Amino acid sequence: MRNVPKKITIIGVGFIGGSIALGLKNRFGNHITMSGYCSRPNRAQKAKKLGIIDNVITLKTIPKDTELLVLATPVLTAAKLLGEIQPQIRQECIVIDVGSTKEFICKIAAQKKFNRLRFIGTHPMAGSECSGFECSDGHLFRNKAWIICPKKKTGPGDINTIQALITSLEANPIQMTPKLHDESVSLVSHLPLSLASILAHLVTKDRFWKMGKQIASSGFRETTRLASFDPHVKTDILLTNRENTTLAIRKMRSEIDIFLKLLEKEKRMELIRYFIHAKQKRDQWLSEYSS
Amino acid sequence: MRNVPKKITIIGVGFIGGSIALGLKNRFGNHITMSGYCSRPNRAQKAKKLGIIDNVITLKTIPKDTELLVLATPVLTAAKLLGEIQPQIRQECIVIDVGSTKEFICKIAAQKKFNRLRFIGTHPMAGSECSGFECSDGHLFRNKAWIICPKKKTGPGDINTIQALITSLEANPIQMTPKLHDESVSLVSHLPLSLASILAHLVTKDRFWKMGKQIASSGFRETTRLASFDPHVKTDILLTNRENTTLAIRKMRSEIDIFLKLLEKEKRMELIRYFIHAKQKRDQWLSEYSS
Repeated sequence: MRNVPKKITIIGVGFIGGSIALGLKNRFGNHITMSGYCSRPNRAQKAKKLGIIDNVITLKTIPKDTELLVLATPVLTAAKLLGEIQPQIRQECIVIDVGSTKEFICKIAAQKKFNRLRFIGTHPMAGSECSGFECSDGHLFRNKAWIICPKKKTGPGDINTIQALITSLEANPIQMTPKLHDESVSLVSHLPLSLASILAHLVTKDRFWKMGKQIASSGFRETTRLASFDPHVKTDILLTNRENTTLAIRKMRSEIDIFLKLLEKEKRMELIRYFIHAKQKRDQWLSEYSS
Repeated sequence: MRNVPKKITIIGVGFIGGSIALGLKNRFGNHITMSGYCSRPNRAQKAKKLGIIDNVITLKTIPKDTELLVLATPVLTAAKLLGEIQPQIRQECIVIDVGSTKEFICKIAAQKKFNRLRFIGTHPMAGSECSGFECSDGHLFRNKAWIICPKKKTGPGDINTIQALITSLEANPIQMTPKLHDESVSLVSHLPLSLASILAHLVTKDRFWKMGKQIASSGFRETTRLASFDPHVKTDILLTNRENTTLAIRKMRSEIDIFLKLLEKEKRMELIRYFIHAKQKRDQWLSEYSS
């Protein structure tokens, strides 16, 4: 466990924070001391009882010897907490977040007042519509991409530490700018997040839902899976990646119009080609993703 | 196995046809004789070797003693085959299809020339992006809805027979008109089928896909799952339910516009409420669907 921090504090022991804690505890056992905060203290006590964390802390009692502090709250909360944690931690402590947007929090962390904060924005590309540490999965990050967005002044030592942490959780660290991250995830993640809720909203308020709900099946379940994602977390994500996501949604609307014309004009061969192309591209991606 | 036909012919031993054959063979073993046709004869031989069917037949050699003939081809092919099979089968033989749209084929089957054809349109609400009998699953239909659309002149005896068949496959028969079926599935099934391909098409041609494909994860995988559905089957489905599906897609476009305004105007509380509502509705459906 060379390079992996041994005193870790997790602010927000939910699904992601819990999965990080669990993965590290599974791997390193008592070599790591895991302190954890939940906004509801009895939740944190439960996480301790389950062995996910070793100590329950408050936002005012962050252990002074913390070597790595993980902000695993919704994005807006994480950004707000930067000011609260800075006075409590030592110069040596590295701070990361695990939120789904990176420009917003990285810009705040780049402010002069956070000059001495060794902050690295990160985003593990793994999730679930399940929330709460009860769903935690120590192998959640296996073979998944985990984006890291260092500050300009972040040294190679800190990057190595975070890469070691990510690798120990079996994930693949990928370094990029917050801008490229947010543009890319707006398409592959935040657009699907939006569409799933829009689709679920539309279908369940339609007059045919009375019959539809009796016959809807796995296709509807999968396509709307992300509609069950935590509403507050989702709102924070979309509001902090608003411009990229609205652009992606507008592109989707244009693509819908292209498709609609093919269908309305009964362009059979063009429809088949359209579906073959989409299938090939997705299947190709899936074979790389799954391997 | 009272009421369940013992001599069954399946035209199109693919994923659905194969799952029906497998489910019935698992349940009734040699009490049922299963004859099967594939457009490629060597495929049918393989299905026989796997024990999914007992006999390989051609479209010209449908066994005269067939009591139930199942059309398990794409919708347009099934509709075309009605004329081809009618002269070969006995008056007693019941014919069903298992296609995803019902108005198109039921209208054809209601034509005067098919007066003596004991046709019942059916649609098992179970599917997969996998095609081919290799993916067959004898328990595919467990607890799933299975729509039946009898002809006006269909007698209660034939309906009982098909209900017994469906129940023996652990599915729940629901009787409705082809019109209500097509309207309902356009929302819960054909809209998701379309959106998945549109989304996969859009995202994989975007300039950010180069990075996006490295970081796309389970959310993208699930939301686009139906993009991997068989392109020819999908085209037949959408073309034979074109009016309802284009209407559903237009509704989706309007709903996207509603959502886009909330996001563009940063209506935080309204977005949260929107997501909570969509989540509640989906979760509620899911708990009923899964139980």
